[in-house]
Amino acid sequence: MNNIINYVGIFSGVCTTISFIPQVIKTWKSKSTKDISFLMFTLFTIGVAGWLIFGILLKNFPIIIANFVTLILASLILIAKIKFG
Amino acid sequence: MNNIINYVGIFSGVCTTISFIPQVIKTWKSKSTKDISFLMFTLFTIGVAGWLIFGILLKNFPIIIANFVTLILASLILIAKIKFG
Repeated sequence: MNNIINYVGIFSGVCTTISFIPQVIKTWKSKSTKDISFLMFTLFTIGVAGWLIFGILLKNFPIIIANFVTLILASLILIAKIKFG
Repeated sequence: MNNIINYVGIFSGVCTTISFIPQVIKTWKSKSTKDISFLMFTLFTIGVAGWLIFGILLKNFPIIIANFVTLILASLILIAKIKFG
């Protein structure tokens, strides 16, 4: 059962993590961030940092790796939003 | 220690969950979704559904509630993207 839980966690983590890649590419290529909410990516980045700490405290590998990479990608979108407005 | 882990999870879940509210409001008010990646919100919605199952399997309340609400909000952004292009 623990294996199944880990597989579901890894699948979900891969989906939510790689989902940010097309947004990062789109945003940095177009340099257009008008439709993106600054408040969304600020709160989201803070929250993902929190989930990373949560994963570390639980010693749960899927939560740690997914949120570490998501934190980097979400930060890149937030930086683009600050830079391009 | 379990209490601390739960508090960190609840804080993170509140942040990542409510983060989608300003994006939902902005998107449905402006009806403009040009800068939002369709692929991002498709993959993200699938992933959040996966995290919800992960939380249910772990019987972990913060993961369940955060991902249930996030699933609804992310779906609203995805529907707007499909509707407004």
